[in-house]
Amino acid sequence: MASPSQLSSTSSPMFDTLVVVGVGLIGGSVAAAAKTRKLARRVVGLGRSAAKLRGAVERGILDEAVEDPAQIGDADLVVACTPVDRIADDIRRLARILPADCLYTDAGSVKEPICRSLVDDPPVSGIFVGGHPLAGSEKGGWEHSDRELFHGKLCVVTPTGREPSGAIARTEEFWKGLGMQVRQMSPQDHDTALALTSHLPHLVASALAAQLTEEMRPFAARGFRDTTRIAAGDPDLWTSIFSSNTEPLQDHLKRLMATLSQFATALDRNDATSLRDLLTVGQTARQAIDGGD
Amino acid sequence: MASPSQLSSTSSPMFDTLVVVGVGLIGGSVAAAAKTRKLARRVVGLGRSAAKLRGAVERGILDEAVEDPAQIGDADLVVACTPVDRIADDIRRLARILPADCLYTDAGSVKEPICRSLVDDPPVSGIFVGGHPLAGSEKGGWEHSDRELFHGKLCVVTPTGREPSGAIARTEEFWKGLGMQVRQMSPQDHDTALALTSHLPHLVASALAAQLTEEMRPFAARGFRDTTRIAAGDPDLWTSIFSSNTEPLQDHLKRLMATLSQFATALDRNDATSLRDLLTVGQTARQAIDGGD
Repeated sequence: MASPSQLSSTSSPMFDTLVVVGVGLIGGSVAAAAKTRKLARRVVGLGRSAAKLRGAVERGILDEAVEDPAQIGDADLVVACTPVDRIADDIRRLARILPADCLYTDAGSVKEPICRSLVDDPPVSGIFVGGHPLAGSEKGGWEHSDRELFHGKLCVVTPTGREPSGAIARTEEFWKGLGMQVRQMSPQDHDTALALTSHLPHLVASALAAQLTEEMRPFAARGFRDTTRIAAGDPDLWTSIFSSNTEPLQDHLKRLMATLSQFATALDRNDATSLRDLLTVGQTARQAIDGGD
Repeated sequence: MASPSQLSSTSSPMFDTLVVVGVGLIGGSVAAAAKTRKLARRVVGLGRSAAKLRGAVERGILDEAVEDPAQIGDADLVVACTPVDRIADDIRRLARILPADCLYTDAGSVKEPICRSLVDDPPVSGIFVGGHPLAGSEKGGWEHSDRELFHGKLCVVTPTGREPSGAIARTEEFWKGLGMQVRQMSPQDHDTALALTSHLPHLVASALAAQLTEEMRPFAARGFRDTTRIAAGDPDLWTSIFSSNTEPLQDHLKRLMATLSQFATALDRNDATSLRDLLTVGQTARQAIDGGD
């Protein structure tokens, strides 16, 4: 049997200090999951207002909350959870202050512009390996943090070919440590996939929600609510996601509009066969994801 | 204090025999809710195969299951839960067999064609008052019956102006007895509203789901799943709904496509201000429904 000291040694944290930059829903959930799973000895949240993060410290989501990077001190992993148009700058800024061997990853929903920016204008020190945990909510703010948000979900890790393999492996270990499945893809392939599976649904949900006039609200039942739920997400965050991924999103939007035009033609002709065929394609595709939800 | 017999008299069922025609998810849930709430002394399910409904009797959702209307006997309320393109015929057929004072209502998602058909070619006896409980699920079959499906939801009742007020009141009492809020609208106004809040979301969810290729499936996270959930519904049922409500649905689809075109233009110009404005309209409309889901 293992002695208590051996057990303690086996279960020593993967990281000493984890820094979460941008403590909103995603950052707060990364911190909460890392604390719960004991992935780091110390979890520091870096935000624009340390005062606003005091509650996160009180709730045990963070060990420390700071607004000045100089207060971080030692750090071996940084997870950038700020909006996608700020992540590269945030990492370059921190790399001027934090230890040279620090590892950087992020939770941005678009990867190519971030990875390209950090290849073209690299941080003065440290290694960056892009990440995107496929989990989220339309609710913002660390108050909605969920330490189980990532459990069983997919995290896409997007190396560019320039990162040492040890840094990629360590980044993957971190996301796996949060309970996630990890899959490697190029930043471009990631962005094409997510334009379809995340950015297009957000655009469509928003456009659909926008049709709802005040007098129609009482008639919005479960179908309408589910289909538009994500439209409640923060417009600023989604503007920066859309703006960072315009071309793949445009391509998928064009294809969706072509399908909608097929529905319009079938309705115009009251062509039940075509309507049934179109609906069957949609049903088959939806059922293929899985049955349970 | 009331004596037991007085109490018993006070709580006597609203109806003697309730007939549910078409015992799928909606019909089964109507039966289950009516049984639980003791709205009828006897609940009879009429289906194409009594054998298939035997389980519903065993589970206490129905008192009796029959496939021949002649076996129903006495009846004072019929709720037609068959597909929208069959409801008017089903009611005319039953009216030739059931008692002359029987009341008929339905659960069809489109009201104008049903109400018009029953005005133009009225049943030989009985009174029909159109109804539409705004509740459902992408799952079909009485096996998914939920006796709380209707609780707290809205039921639209659609008189045409020809029904005796007593029949309208009694129909409303029935739906209220299932725990629903009731609202009167003309069949046309109902269909215009539901084209927007139910039929268009289904069309959009189906078109969006249809974009998902097999290799993209792993990247479909909660946003995609929620936005497309209803696309898993039965294509036959939805074809008959769409075919019965083409014009209002076409109008709403055109307006949605105009909004999608605005998104396409904003993406084309990488116009962050327009993207933010569009997303804000969608967020505001979605948040106005309510916060909780």
